[in-house]
Amino acid sequence: MRVRNKPWAEDYIKQHDGIVVLEPSQNKGKWKQAFSHTNRPVHLEIGSGRGGFIQGMGAKNPEINFIGMEVQKNVVVSAIDRVKEAEVENVRLLHENADQLSDIFEENELDTIYLNFSDPWPKNRHEKRRLTHQSFLSQYQQILKADGKIVMKTDNQHLFEYSLVSFSQFGLRLEEVTLDLHATEDPTNVMTEYEEKFTNKGQPIYRCIISNHK
Amino acid sequence: MRVRNKPWAEDYIKQHDGIVVLEPSQNKGKWKQAFSHTNRPVHLEIGSGRGGFIQGMGAKNPEINFIGMEVQKNVVVSAIDRVKEAEVENVRLLHENADQLSDIFEENELDTIYLNFSDPWPKNRHEKRRLTHQSFLSQYQQILKADGKIVMKTDNQHLFEYSLVSFSQFGLRLEEVTLDLHATEDPTNVMTEYEEKFTNKGQPIYRCIISNHK
Repeated sequence: MRVRNKPWAEDYIKQHDGIVVLEPSQNKGKWKQAFSHTNRPVHLEIGSGRGGFIQGMGAKNPEINFIGMEVQKNVVVSAIDRVKEAEVENVRLLHENADQLSDIFEENELDTIYLNFSDPWPKNRHEKRRLTHQSFLSQYQQILKADGKIVMKTDNQHLFEYSLVSFSQFGLRLEEVTLDLHATEDPTNVMTEYEEKFTNKGQPIYRCIISNHK
Repeated sequence: MRVRNKPWAEDYIKQHDGIVVLEPSQNKGKWKQAFSHTNRPVHLEIGSGRGGFIQGMGAKNPEINFIGMEVQKNVVVSAIDRVKEAEVENVRLLHENADQLSDIFEENELDTIYLNFSDPWPKNRHEKRRLTHQSFLSQYQQILKADGKIVMKTDNQHLFEYSLVSFSQFGLRLEEVTLDLHATEDPTNVMTEYEEKFTNKGQPIYRCIISNHK
């Protein structure tokens, strides 16, 4: 996503330390306690962008605590505004990249990981950067519970094809796959900003649900 | 596929026992010897219809021996004519259903199984009839070599979704998946009659390649 540079973004993030967790590694192993209602399942979105999904999920599922992780500071600020305006108490944001998840989360700490419209990195030489590359799957498997889930949505055909094979070769089990998410109504689905745009254009959205069997 | 009844079909099949193997269980464990050029890999298509694929594969791959299995006698006769006209020596047909594959094939006897445009059996109560139901996968795994392949093509979205999950849950590994086979040229692909029809209509063709790891 290309975004305008906002020189004030870093300060803005620091000013909102009730919403953005500034030192996430300090919460490692105790993320449940980082929320107003403790001891609830914790779900993580990697690449939460402007926060539409994570805020929508938070509002729709008050019994779950959500973390949205996003590397681009100019986008995190939009997510802050969304979470603030929606007054959802069960959503926290991280301004981090996904390279060192095990510094931030303890083994078996998460119930679900969402990968929504991740960067497809179409060139072969960038394969390692795709969020469904084996090196990432290995991290997800570690921080997910034994029966945890990965839920992936994308409009990108090649990323989806690549990811299905990657999950399978890594030994993760496919629980569900849909090649046209919006052809049938799913009342539990929360659309991301991308998803709305692509769906309005009539493009199919792919989704798969992966189960972590340790 | 709905086809006109041909009362002469059974006689026609019997008259072509050079092409159709009438007592296939007699070849169990020695299918390689059933062809003019023995000791070559044996590939099986389940549901070979009018034979366009199996004849085309035979012509294109003279170093492989092919078996096309089809339950509908009124269709088998068209396949006989195709194989006869094309004068392919490396193709045999079976007029059988796929329920008792282990009566016909020995363990580890086949290199590849093709499932092309199989009946989707869309109703849940017919799930067991789908050729990618676990009970069939169990038979395929038995008669395929340890590193054998299953190659599936279909235009049916729901059958494809179902099959990907079914393969995964059974523990078979996805080697390749494509959600739009004809978007890129694949010179090894041989189109079936269905495939040509659907491709001409602009519908996407799905394909996956599954690896049998015993």
